Amino acid sequence: MQSNNSFQSFSTLKGEFLPTIYPFSSEEKISEALLKANEAVIPYGKTSFVQRADFLETIAQNILALGEDLLMQAHLETALPIARLTGERDRTINQLKLFASLLREGSWVDAVIDTALPDRKPLPRADIRRMLQPIGPVLVFGASNFPFAYSTAGVDTASALAAGCPVIVKAHESHLGTNEMVASAIKQAIDQTKMPLGTFDTLIGEGPVLGQQLATNELIKAIGFTGSYKAGMALYTTATQKRKTPIPVYAEMSSINPIVLLPKTLEEKVEQIATTLSASILLGVGQFCTSPGLIFVIESEAANRLKELLAHHLKTANSAVMLNQTISKAYYTDQKKLIGYDGVTIIIQGQDESSLYKATPTLLSVNAAHFITEPLLQKEVFGPCSMIVVCKDQSELNNAIMHMHGQLTGSFFGNTEELEEYNHAIDLLQQRVGRIVFNNVPTGVEVCNAMVHGGPFPSTTDGRTTSVGPEAIKRFVRPVCYQDCPDDLLPVYLRNKNEAGINRNINGVITNVSIK
Amino acid sequence: MQSNNSFQSFSTLKGEFLPTIYPFSSEEKISEALLKANEAVIPYGKTSFVQRADFLETIAQNILALGEDLLMQAHLETALPIARLTGERDRTINQLKLFASLLREGSWVDAVIDTALPDRKPLPRADIRRMLQPIGPVLVFGASNFPFAYSTAGVDTASALAAGCPVIVKAHESHLGTNEMVASAIKQAIDQTKMPLGTFDTLIGEGPVLGQQLATNELIKAIGFTGSYKAGMALYTTATQKRKTPIPVYAEMSSINPIVLLPKTLEEKVEQIATTLSASILLGVGQFCTSPGLIFVIESEAANRLKELLAHHLKTANSAVMLNQTISKAYYTDQKKLIGYDGVTIIIQGQDESSLYKATPTLLSVNAAHFITEPLLQKEVFGPCSMIVVCKDQSELNNAIMHMHGQLTGSFFGNTEELEEYNHAIDLLQQRVGRIVFNNVPTGVEVCNAMVHGGPFPSTTDGRTTSVGPEAIKRFVRPVCYQDCPDDLLPVYLRNKNEAGINRNINGVITNVSIK
Repeated sequence: MQSNNSFQSFSTLKGEFLPTIYPFSSEEKISEALLKANEAVIPYGKTSFVQRADFLETIAQNILALGEDLLMQAHLETALPIARLTGERDRTINQLKLFASLLREGSWVDAVIDTALPDRKPLPRADIRRMLQPIGPVLVFGASNFPFAYSTAGVDTASALAAGCPVIVKAHESHLGTNEMVASAIKQAIDQTKMPLGTFDTLIGEGPVLGQQLATNELIKAIGFTGSYKAGMALYTTATQKRKTPIPVYAEMSSINPIVLLPKTLEEKVEQIATTLSASILLGVGQFCTSPGLIFVIESEAANRLKELLAHHLKTANSAVMLNQTISKAYYTDQKKLIGYDGVTIIIQGQDESSLYKATPTLLSVNAAHFITEPLLQKEVFGPCSMIVVCKDQSELNNAIMHMHGQLTGSFFGNTEELEEYNHAIDLLQQRVGRIVFNNVPTGVEVCNAMVHGGPFPSTTDGRTTSVGPEAIKRFVRPVCYQDCPDDLLPVYLRNKNEAGINRNINGVITNVSIK
Repeated sequence: MQSNNSFQSFSTLKGEFLPTIYPFSSEEKISEALLKANEAVIPYGKTSFVQRADFLETIAQNILALGEDLLMQAHLETALPIARLTGERDRTINQLKLFASLLREGSWVDAVIDTALPDRKPLPRADIRRMLQPIGPVLVFGASNFPFAYSTAGVDTASALAAGCPVIVKAHESHLGTNEMVASAIKQAIDQTKMPLGTFDTLIGEGPVLGQQLATNELIKAIGFTGSYKAGMALYTTATQKRKTPIPVYAEMSSINPIVLLPKTLEEKVEQIATTLSASILLGVGQFCTSPGLIFVIESEAANRLKELLAHHLKTANSAVMLNQTISKAYYTDQKKLIGYDGVTIIIQGQDESSLYKATPTLLSVNAAHFITEPLLQKEVFGPCSMIVVCKDQSELNNAIMHMHGQLTGSFFGNTEELEEYNHAIDLLQQRVGRIVFNNVPTGVEVCNAMVHGGPFPSTTDGRTTSVGPEAIKRFVRPVCYQDCPDDLLPVYLRNKNEAGINRNINGVITNVSIK
């Protein structure tokens, strides 16, 4: 609930308001957070990687020390089950530790050294050294669907802090208690590891108002966001057009994660596929950015059988409580819009349970010809809703994929022969996604070195990056090069003596030796 | 000269129109170039790195084979001296070869492989592999001041082709003959090395009209540009706001490359510094993006002496022919605007020779207090114009640097002790530049691994990148990850067998071995 100057969280789980009232951050508090963050830029940017690793690990410890209280607070605020929240909390801690170990190893900084060639003809070459440096204060928006992993101390915060950037978190209004607890864990770590005061802060206010106020402030140098297309694009427009200096925005916004079921495999494994797919659609009440919202099939008996089986699985699933009132209401509104388009057939449609903040699954079907001509059929419905797109043949499938917007993921189910046969469809899908999955569903994002969680627009505003895995740190840095800089004045990672023992590119050779 | 539907180049060197008339590309030609580029995306993107290296090296050979004719054409069209053009042609050829060798080595593609962990508890890990893939067709704008190195086969084209992206060049209207010759060298190489037809094309038309038409086309996936702030920002607005899908723009626009002269060093070496600085200001008639347009000094006798010495050197320099009519006219117009601001003192101002397409150097002076309050004093004047900013003391110097916009470069002249003393000024300048130079001028950009030619806005629209050196390839790629992909269907650089022998990150270890 929002008054003129405060929030009170509504628990969809309990069907009532939680007791605590969170006042909006005052103008003084907002200015102070920005100024302190700016003051922290140079001292925090100059901390060693080991110091930053200690800091991140201390944050992780402090979050763990919050124990059951933190889990229960998040449970009440998001209606997510305790088991899921425990897993997410642990993932968040592991992410912090992952960036800490990246820092301890140190080679991520991409140190490149070309030593001087004073005798080169016709002109000598200067000594030139480059490494990645922090971009400046980062504004992070907490996400409704991941109160830990994509919020206050989530991957945007962790990667920005690892990069050496101060962070200001705009707290998500639906889990302000969780935010407060996690923020206190971070602030305690600042104190324990003697980081500059302005290294982290969190602010509370109406999304569109406070968000825009912070995004237009010239002291902010980059934005990390996970949420709706509308809010993400508002930030993108602000960051690129409404500031004196445009800044990068990493907004993860909207993805319906197409799954292509090739005919022979579908015929052979229709029961297994239906089970796997329906579980993926239902996972987390469909409130995942990788939830499969599109299923491509080629017209066949097996395709009809798939519809029946999916309908059966989804119909027999219990309706489940969604994250908050806004999301549960939008689920039914957006679904109704989708159903209204030409050619859309309802296979199953649950009862509107938005008054109970619950979602019941929906399964729709449409012919590829309609899908191709109506781009609005690709609008994400956040929740357990999926649409089967029926293609006449391989050529229509290719055409449908060519009309598909950018996605986080795309999946193919097929045996080796079929995948060879549909090679062009795979090439076309690869152009449009960040991750391409074979014989599995896209839900379940592994946190590992090779992961890409990102993709072409509109799945994100910057498909050149990932928001999961160590590579996420690259979003908050830029290369700086030093020409003929005295050794003492160089950042420690570029000095002759390779104190940190990191891998560096010296005159074209990767090595961890010092320069004599 | 521009008619309704054609260009005729004016030679500022000869003071007359060159004979050839270049008609604007027809709508049919424009559509065809775009469609062919789109058709080339998959086949060209799938060429091996060795095939692309052959292609780039063949382009280099073909350009070299154009010999004197090419140099003379560029000389007539740009008024740049033959010696300079020979150097620039060679640099362009070397850039093509640099990207070819990057491709032959292959590790640039950033292959990361996390193999499956089927027995992991509680959940198995899939096989996940990622590498950089081409972003799609790239639109490149030829630059007036580098007819070779930043035009038709310049670094944007070379790096995009190396990345696996088809390229469409919007030819610069002031060197269309040069463009035609270089484009024919590229098209011949397409034929010789059997690349897809749509891999490269060039189009002619009015900058704002054709440029916008191409930039708004959904088939274009990234833009490389070097030129004015106005044109760069028009492209940036288009790319971020006027398309269904926003795309990255790498626009290098405007930089005045501040030089800070610390007091003791200035006192000791004022004559030498004045000689070096004036040569840098005059280099290429000031028509370089790294031309030093700002000189910070602390009030002193030596600072006064510097003014006298610089004035002497610049006054005695011959006036020189500029690239084209527009630039020579703008040089005097922009200068006049600068002189009109409060507190600006003229040290020397040359006679307006824009009717002869020539520039005579200008040296201005202003107090830091005025510099700090008037941001328009930081507007680039393209040509041999520089402004001395006089600071009262170290604290005012710091303040002036804090008010400085983003730059490609920043330089400090100082001895070791002084540099230590002014450490905070260096930190502040580092926040605002891509390259920081010690005891030298910023002109002369080395093409090497460690180079950063880029910087915070407004020097470029994307300070996370460089447009010089092998790292420039990273502008035209995005990471794509493959989950449980059958080995045969993987890109060759991610397969178990490491045929190309590149360095890959396999389960966290950098290695060039194959996976068994």
